[in-house]
Amino acid sequence: MIKILNPCKATFTGIGQVMFQQSAWTGLLFLAGIFWGSYENHIPQVAYGAIVGAVVATLSGYLLQPKSTDFDAGLFGFNGTLVGCAFPTFLANTWLMWLALVICAAMTSWVRTGFNNVMAPWKCNSLTFPFVFMTWIFLYASRMMHGLPTDPSGLSMPQLNIHFDFVLDTSFGQLVIYWLKGISQVFLINSWVTGIFFLVALAVCSRWACMWAAIASAVSLAIAILFEADPNDIANGLFGFSPVLTGIAVGCTFYKPGLKTALWTLMAIIATVFVQAGMDSFFTPYGLPTLTGPFCITTWLFLLPAYKLNTVQS
Amino acid sequence: MIKILNPCKATFTGIGQVMFQQSAWTGLLFLAGIFWGSYENHIPQVAYGAIVGAVVATLSGYLLQPKSTDFDAGLFGFNGTLVGCAFPTFLANTWLMWLALVICAAMTSWVRTGFNNVMAPWKCNSLTFPFVFMTWIFLYASRMMHGLPTDPSGLSMPQLNIHFDFVLDTSFGQLVIYWLKGISQVFLINSWVTGIFFLVALAVCSRWACMWAAIASAVSLAIAILFEADPNDIANGLFGFSPVLTGIAVGCTFYKPGLKTALWTLMAIIATVFVQAGMDSFFTPYGLPTLTGPFCITTWLFLLPAYKLNTVQS
Amino acid sequence: MIKILNPCKATFTGIGQVMFQQSAWTGLLFLAGIFWGSYENHIPQVAYGAIVGAVVATLSGYLLQPKSTDFDAGLFGFNGTLVGCAFPTFLANTWLMWLALVICAAMTSWVRTGFNNVMAPWKCNSLTFPFVFMTWIFLYASRMMHGLPTDPSGLSMPQLNIHFDFVLDTSFGQLVIYWLKGISQVFLINSWVTGIFFLVALAVCSRWACMWAAIASAVSLAIAILFEADPNDIANGLFGFSPVLTGIAVGCTFYKPGLKTALWTLMAIIATVFVQAGMDSFFTPYGLPTLTGPFCITTWLFLLPAYKLNTVQS
Repeated sequence: MIKILNPCKATFTGIGQVMFQQSAWTGLLFLAGIFWGSYENHIPQVAYGAIVGAVVATLSGYLLQPKSTDFDAGLFGFNGTLVGCAFPTFLANTWLMWLALVICAAMTSWVRTGFNNVMAPWKCNSLTFPFVFMTWIFLYASRMMHGLPTDPSGLSMPQLNIHFDFVLDTSFGQLVIYWLKGISQVFLINSWVTGIFFLVALAVCSRWACMWAAIASAVSLAIAILFEADPNDIANGLFGFSPVLTGIAVGCTFYKPGLKTALWTLMAIIATVFVQAGMDSFFTPYGLPTLTGPFCITTWLFLLPAYKLNTVQS
Repeated sequence: MIKILNPCKATFTGIGQVMFQQSAWTGLLFLAGIFWGSYENHIPQVAYGAIVGAVVATLSGYLLQPKSTDFDAGLFGFNGTLVGCAFPTFLANTWLMWLALVICAAMTSWVRTGFNNVMAPWKCNSLTFPFVFMTWIFLYASRMMHGLPTDPSGLSMPQLNIHFDFVLDTSFGQLVIYWLKGISQVFLINSWVTGIFFLVALAVCSRWACMWAAIASAVSLAIAILFEADPNDIANGLFGFSPVLTGIAVGCTFYKPGLKTALWTLMAIIATVFVQAGMDSFFTPYGLPTLTGPFCITTWLFLLPAYKLNTVQS
Repeated sequence: MIKILNPCKATFTGIGQVMFQQSAWTGLLFLAGIFWGSYENHIPQVAYGAIVGAVVATLSGYLLQPKSTDFDAGLFGFNGTLVGCAFPTFLANTWLMWLALVICAAMTSWVRTGFNNVMAPWKCNSLTFPFVFMTWIFLYASRMMHGLPTDPSGLSMPQLNIHFDFVLDTSFGQLVIYWLKGISQVFLINSWVTGIFFLVALAVCSRWACMWAAIASAVSLAIAILFEADPNDIANGLFGFSPVLTGIAVGCTFYKPGLKTALWTLMAIIATVFVQAGMDSFFTPYGLPTLTGPFCITTWLFLLPAYKLNTVQS
C-alpha cells in the first residue's frame, strides 16, 4: 500500500511545486482546477497531459536519482506537469504529440538537475526553466515537423502586430475576471473559476503565497493596462501568470516576508510585466509562447544580487 | 555641504565610468558633449535623460548597498546614464517613457551587482551589459505597449535590407567626421563636435584611453569600409562606438599597455566590427539597436582566456 | 625534420579531433573524405579551407599558449577545421572571405580557451561551440557586409516554410545514402562516399566511435522520418551530423561504454533530432545554418547532471 501511496503523493506534490508549495493537497486542488478549466474550454487533453507529464517526470527523476529527497518533495514533477499542460495546448492531439510529450517531460528531470548544478554557485535554482527551455525546443521543432502539427493559424510567420484591434472592457466585473485568469494561466488554463481553485489551493498550504499571487495578478494587470499592452493578452490573463510566480518566489519563498521584502517583491512583479511584453515581442515572429520564461528571468535578476533583506519574519 | 557634494561627484564620476574613467571632471566633460550633441540634433531630452538616469541609478545603488565603495567610484551610475541616453533616443517623449526610464535605470544598479556576482569566478565583470540587457527588454516591450510608442518607421517588421541605397563619401574630411561620430555614439550622440568633447574628456583622465579611443574608431572605420558594411551606419559612426569601448577596455583598463597588449587590442577592435555587423543582422528584423552589446561580447571573448600578457608597463 | 613533422601531426590530429579522435591518421582520412566530397560537389575550396582553418587555428593556439599540451593533442585545430569547411560552403569565394576565414579560425583557439574556462567548474568543455559561435557571428555579419556576399537565394528573409514540396524516397538504397550523408555532413560535406571515408577513419582509431556514429545516423534518420521533418534536409543528411557527434561524445568519449551508457546515449541521440529541428526553425528566418549547435546543446544537457553511470567497461 505504501508502495503505491508514496509515488502518488510525490506526483501530487510535484503538481503543487509548480507554485512552490510542497503539499499533495495543494497539488490535488491545482489538478481539480486544471480539470475544471480544460473541460470548460473543451480541451480535456490538457488535464490528462498534466497527469501524464507529472507521472513521467517523477518516474524519470526517480530512476536516475533513486536516493534523492527531491522525489518526496515533488521537485522532479513540477516541470513535467507544465510540459503536460503546454503540449496539448499548443499542438494537435495526435499520438506523436503524446510521444513527444513523454520524451520532453522525462527530460525535464535531468535537465533540471543539470541546470541546478550550473546555478548552484550563485545559490539560485532553475525554477521552471527546464520546462520552458525544453518546451521551446519542441515547439520550435514542431514548426519543422509535419508529425507535430499546430493549428493552421500559427503556421506562417506573423508580422509584429502593434495595432491591437481589441478594445479592453475595464468594468470592475471584467477586471476581476482578468485578475483571476492571470492566476489560472500559471498552468496555461484560461478560466476565472480555475483561478479561484488555485487561490484556495495556495491558501491551504501558505497564506503568504495566496496573498502574493493575488497581489501580483492585480499589480501586473494595472501595469499592463497603464502601459497599454495588448488588450487581448490582458483579457486572457497572459500578463498575470509570470508575475504571480515571481510574487510567490520573491515574496515568500526565497526571502522571508517583511517590509523590505514586500517592496522588493513589488518591484519584481512590475519588472516581470516588462520582461513579459519584451519576450512576447521576441517570440511573436515565430508565433511561439513565452511560457514562464519571464518569471524565471525576472526572479533570477532579483535573486542574483544576493542582497540580505534583514526583515522581521512574521 | 559635503552631503551635497559627494552625491554630485558620484553621479559625474558615474558618467565618466561609461568609458572606464573614474573622474568627475571627465564625466562633466562627457555631459557637456552630450548636451552639445543632443541640442544640435534637436533632441535635448537625451541630455536630461542622461542626468536623470545617472542620478536614479546612483541613488538606487546607494539605497541597496549603502556601504559599498562602488558609490564613490561611480560604478552604480554608468549603466543608468546610458539608459537615460537610450530611452529618449528610441522612444517618444511621453511621461510613461520617463517612468519606464526611471524603473529601468534603477534596476541597472542591482542587475549589475547580480551579473557581477555571476561573472566573478572568471574575473570578468558585466561591463555595460546591465544597460544593454535591461534596455533591450524595455525596447522589445515597447513594441507590445502602446504606452511606449516609437517613431512610426520602426513599428513594422522590416526585411533584412542587404541592398544599401546610400553611397559613402570617402573624402578625407568626411572620414574624419565619421571617425569622430564613432566616438560620440558611445553615448548614442550623432555629432562630430561631441566626438571632440569626448576625446578631450578622456585625455583629462588618461592619455592611453584617449589614444585607444582614437585608434579604435579609425581601425573599425577602415574594417567596416573594407568589408563594405552598411554605408549609412558607417557615416553615422555606428561601427565605431563599440570598438572604442573595446579598445579602452582591452588596451588600457583590463591589461597593462604594452606591445603584446597592443596587438591583442587591435585584434579585439577588429573582432568587434564583425560582432557589430552580426548583431545588427540579428536585431534588424525587430528594428532594434544592438546598443553596446558588441563591445560586451567581444571584450569578454578577449578576457575569458585569462592570458597573462607580460608587458613592460609604460 | 621534427620541427616540421610535429606541426603537421598536430594539424592532422586537429582534424581528427572534430570527432574526438586523437589520431593524425584519422585526421588524414577525414581530410581525404573532405577532398573527395568537395571535388565531387565542385566546391574544392571547402577542402582547402579545411586545411587553412586547421593550420591557422593550430598556429594561433601555439602562439598564445606555447607550452600547452593541447597543441600535440590537436585540440587547437578542430574548431578551425570546421570554420574552414563552413566559410567556403556558405560564402562566395572571394579574397575577403579568406581573410575573414583566417580571422575567425585564429579566434577559435582563444575563444575555446575562454569557453573552457567558463565551463570548467561543471567538468564540461566547449565542444565545437567556439566554431559554432564565431561562425554564426561572421555569417550574420555577412548579411550586413557586401564584402562577404552569399549566394543570391540566401539574401532575403525567407518565411518559415512548413509546406515541404519534396517527397522523400524511402527505398532501402536511398536510406543508406541518407544515412551515410548524415555522417559526411559532420564536416559539411554532402556525399555518401565521404560518409564511408569517415566511418573507416573512425574505425582506425576507435571501433566504439565508429559504431556510435553509425547508430546515431540511423536512429536520427528514423526519428526525423517518423516525425515528418523536412524531407529535403533528411535526404541531405542534415538531421544526422549533430546526432553523430552526440553519439560519439556521450556513447564513448565522456562516459565509459556499457548498458546504462548505451541507453543514455540513445536518449541523447533522439533528443538531438528535436534540438536540430527546433534550431532550424529559429535560424530559418535568417537563412542561417545551425552548424553543430544542436550537438553542443544536447550533449551539455546530458553531461551537466553529472550522473555517474556505473558501467562495466568493455
